[in-house]
Amino acid sequence: MKLEMICTGEEVLAGQIVDTNAAWFANALMEKGIECQRRITVGDRLEDLVAVFKERSTEADIIMVNGGLGPTSDDLSTEAMASAMGVSLVENKEWRNKLEAWFTKNGRVMAASNLKQALLPEGAVMIDNPVGTACGFAVKFNRAWLFFTPGVPFEFKRMVTDQFIPFVEDRFPLSEPVSVKKLLTLGNGESALADKLEVISLPEGITLGYRSYMPYIEIKLFARGQLAIDSIPRITERVEEILGNGVVAEDITTLDQEIHNRLVNSGLTLSVAESCTGGMITSGLVAFAGSSAYLHQGLVTYSNEAKVKVLGVNPHTLDDHGAVSIATVEEMVKGARGILDSDFALATSGIAGPEGGSDEKPVGTVAIALATKSGVYSQMLKLPSRSRALVRTLSTAVAYDMLRRELLGEAVIVDYASFSRFSK
Amino acid sequence: MKLEMICTGEEVLAGQIVDTNAAWFANALMEKGIECQRRITVGDRLEDLVAVFKERSTEADIIMVNGGLGPTSDDLSTEAMASAMGVSLVENKEWRNKLEAWFTKNGRVMAASNLKQALLPEGAVMIDNPVGTACGFAVKFNRAWLFFTPGVPFEFKRMVTDQFIPFVEDRFPLSEPVSVKKLLTLGNGESALADKLEVISLPEGITLGYRSYMPYIEIKLFARGQLAIDSIPRITERVEEILGNGVVAEDITTLDQEIHNRLVNSGLTLSVAESCTGGMITSGLVAFAGSSAYLHQGLVTYSNEAKVKVLGVNPHTLDDHGAVSIATVEEMVKGARGILDSDFALATSGIAGPEGGSDEKPVGTVAIALATKSGVYSQMLKLPSRSRALVRTLSTAVAYDMLRRELLGEAVIVDYASFSRFSK
Repeated sequence: MKLEMICTGEEVLAGQIVDTNAAWFANALMEKGIECQRRITVGDRLEDLVAVFKERSTEADIIMVNGGLGPTSDDLSTEAMASAMGVSLVENKEWRNKLEAWFTKNGRVMAASNLKQALLPEGAVMIDNPVGTACGFAVKFNRAWLFFTPGVPFEFKRMVTDQFIPFVEDRFPLSEPVSVKKLLTLGNGESALADKLEVISLPEGITLGYRSYMPYIEIKLFARGQLAIDSIPRITERVEEILGNGVVAEDITTLDQEIHNRLVNSGLTLSVAESCTGGMITSGLVAFAGSSAYLHQGLVTYSNEAKVKVLGVNPHTLDDHGAVSIATVEEMVKGARGILDSDFALATSGIAGPEGGSDEKPVGTVAIALATKSGVYSQMLKLPSRSRALVRTLSTAVAYDMLRRELLGEAVIVDYASFSRFSK
Repeated sequence: MKLEMICTGEEVLAGQIVDTNAAWFANALMEKGIECQRRITVGDRLEDLVAVFKERSTEADIIMVNGGLGPTSDDLSTEAMASAMGVSLVENKEWRNKLEAWFTKNGRVMAASNLKQALLPEGAVMIDNPVGTACGFAVKFNRAWLFFTPGVPFEFKRMVTDQFIPFVEDRFPLSEPVSVKKLLTLGNGESALADKLEVISLPEGITLGYRSYMPYIEIKLFARGQLAIDSIPRITERVEEILGNGVVAEDITTLDQEIHNRLVNSGLTLSVAESCTGGMITSGLVAFAGSSAYLHQGLVTYSNEAKVKVLGVNPHTLDDHGAVSIATVEEMVKGARGILDSDFALATSGIAGPEGGSDEKPVGTVAIALATKSGVYSQMLKLPSRSRALVRTLSTAVAYDMLRRELLGEAVIVDYASFSRFSK
């Protein structure tokens, strides 16, 4: 079975928007064991669309076409498909009725241009869109089934999940079941991960993939066939054995989500004092609804004066040790925790660069501390040769990981593969 | 002239990485008045690459091929091109010498696999890569020039700018000069902008484009030909006249960059107190190197207790007016400014949702204040029917815009097209 995707739209082709639908689609298929073999991106010109539909329909078995189903004059996918097939457009009564009901229900008057969205090429199968005004449709042409979907991401995703994947599975059944296991890692680059995991002899049907969510890299264990699926726990264990502290979460995309879940469920509270991370630790948590249940405050004490005034850091500590030091970050974290007697506090102070480094404390030097009601843990990392953004995201990730370990009752301070630490 | 792009790599096709090179490329060409007409994404299989090179070389005049020039076994672009042309690979002495010199200079031993990177299809023109170990090359095949570049973004971008664009301009000279003017807007959706600007009769050679950087939309005035270029100031003025307060910056991508530049240059200082924006205002500024020059502190006082303890908000104010109120946000902003007597402070307090709204203050209610040494400005916006993320980014943008207006000596509080405001 040969599957391709055609993405339409001037704004995608011209780079005005990055085509996240395409990446999401390939990934969603991959997790079902279905491979997309080619992706073609074209603009909004009718003749370009007609040409690409004619051309690819003789090469592929299934073609996902995304975009160009809207009500405006530059939405031409439907017209182009009818033209390629040499058929006319006919009104789909079922969709017209749904459209009218939808507008009535929402108390809005349907514009004449919306009627266009009920026109389909003669002989097309209407595909329901439960969340928008553009229905999809499927047509058989030459060798291929072409499956048309709207470009709006949440409509597209819903239709892929609810209709397209079953459509493909019906017509081209997979011979074997598939399954995916995901491990979130921190502290190894992609090639370092690949090198380290090379020693694992993977059973038939298991493949390893990597996906980068800076500063994390997600490892995907993809299993095809029941024997391979049964081997997932064993391979997972081997990966965790080899990577040790490098694996920071399972089946979850980022550590902030992990921290959020654990804090919401525990009823414990957190305060944050940030210098070089500049609000990233806090902002990552505030992104989740319900974070107000545990987050007391996040204090970005960027200047020395703020560290003294807001957190109660002793000016002598700053003079004697500098802002980026174990001594300072420990006073910061105690100060932050103490203000509202939070269960935990996290603090960072570092040199994110590109300026501000010295021989003793080069760019990428970051002090990170965790305070609990019974004590303080701290470490000073060396993160050289990294961009300002990467120093900040890595520091945020390590701070989250320290708290995660504490919540799990594990050792708070551990070695990560690619960062070294100042000795105290 | 027909120009296409072929993107190679399993990780791009399979959605493991989003193809930012492609969007960047189309956009960089567009600004030079060059149009990319089709983009094809394929994996790493040799036969797929050979097929796509053969097929597209009969259709296009110029094809940018990106990726697959690395040293590993799944980098097959060069081999596939030679195979498509029926020629052998020959070592390019110039590049081999450069490679050896590069490794010697960096004190590293060249792996045997790197030698592969000096092999080019017979008859190819070597294209220098000033910043990496993979050289590019160009070949004439069938109708097309195929121009090969490495996938590493900064190498790719450098080669497009320094070599590819001049290569195209040499062979297919533009008949006319082109120019682009960018206006950053806030508070109008893309279709609202298009509707409003429809009344402008654009002279021959001027096109309007839109690019979304949530929550901003950038308007691009693209001019082709000297007459069109000469009309840019007049059209810009018309756009600004129609959009009024909607235009927040020129030739710049985000307001945080604008605020950063203005504060660095002015020597004035800022403190921030955030509730619903949860560190976004602060983090946006800390992203720029040198922000420590003006940013005193950013206090995310998420809980009521933190507002009282850290900012000195009166508990009675919270009881009488609630956390999301003009009264509270004004005390927050005064408190934040006062701690270190900063020149300015910004504060936000709102209901980002999806929970926490009431009839009186529904989700999307956000109070925003700016304090200067002489007074306080505040407003309470209604941002209904928006996601948590969008409520937060819009509130951040409005806060920045209030400060921007103050720095320019303009009215601080103005109406934006698509947000309404609570009357005090």
